[in-house]
Amino acid sequence: MIYPSPVRIEPIPGYAPAIGRLVGMLSYARSTTLAAVDGLTVEDLDHLQDEHSNSIGALLSHIGAVERSYQVLTFEERLLSSQENELLGTALKLGDEARRVLRGYPLEHYLNDLAAVREETLKALAARDDAWLDRSVVPAPRINAHWAWFHVAEDEVNHRGQIRWLRGRLPRRDSA
Amino acid sequence: MIYPSPVRIEPIPGYAPAIGRLVGMLSYARSTTLAAVDGLTVEDLDHLQDEHSNSIGALLSHIGAVERSYQVLTFEERLLSSQENELLGTALKLGDEARRVLRGYPLEHYLNDLAAVREETLKALAARDDAWLDRSVVPAPRINAHWAWFHVAEDEVNHRGQIRWLRGRLPRRDSA
Repeated sequence: MIYPSPVRIEPIPGYAPAIGRLVGMLSYARSTTLAAVDGLTVEDLDHLQDEHSNSIGALLSHIGAVERSYQVLTFEERLLSSQENELLGTALKLGDEARRVLRGYPLEHYLNDLAAVREETLKALAARDDAWLDRSVVPAPRINAHWAWFHVAEDEVNHRGQIRWLRGRLPRRDSA
Repeated sequence: MIYPSPVRIEPIPGYAPAIGRLVGMLSYARSTTLAAVDGLTVEDLDHLQDEHSNSIGALLSHIGAVERSYQVLTFEERLLSSQENELLGTALKLGDEARRVLRGYPLEHYLNDLAAVREETLKALAARDDAWLDRSVVPAPRINAHWAWFHVAEDEVNHRGQIRWLRGRLPRRDSA
């Protein structure tokens, strides 16, 4: 599959100018994540490189959970509820619990989750203006909304770098 | 050492508005790279996790070389000369040659190089306006200048993700 990889960052119709540039960055980062996991099997997604390593599947879950948590922080202007913490905590924290629980899913499971979360992000960003982007995040006033959404892309790219490294070391499974 | 980690992306005095936001992203990415390598010894920087792995030192060289090559592309509006390709090629390409050559340097060597390259980037960005940021890169017109400089930060973050992973697996050297 070919994932379109937008290599221009500029204002985008349907978004305020600075928000459009940000959407370009989020979209570019996502296109590279999708390319990095293209064609992986359940075994590939579950593989643990060593006892402290996160699986590629868990990293994909993490990417979606980070985006969802920043939706709550910046669009809903509140901290995660204890129910949301329960739901997202494993993917957010990674580590032992994620190694135990986040496995057995096909690639589509992770990609559907990422696409559903992204759809909400784009809808919410389209409804906001550049003044909103500069404002402090209400429940975390040290950061502003623009940093928050840059960070969502930036954390994804951090883990995409790890996914590329891990993918290059998956055990070869020769076809029968 | 504490590296200031700017967690607001907004216009910055001394830069055009969109360029200032971009400088915030470059600075944030760099602060996290510096934090990720803080205190590493020559042995740590040279360590190879496996036969296909890049050392953390080589990744730091790569980060500086990518930034330098995008200076040439976007500020000098030309492709790398064969001399520059010679000089930067090993760090840009990584792999076998980098594993052979990029070793034996203390952290300061890499950090001084990164700081010198960054100083040139900031000087050049301060002299440009937001219309420049939107324009196509002359020797690579498919991309525009904003994507080019977002990509410099993005590639750095990709490798910072790998540096964090590799740092967590450095052989422990118990002090005598």
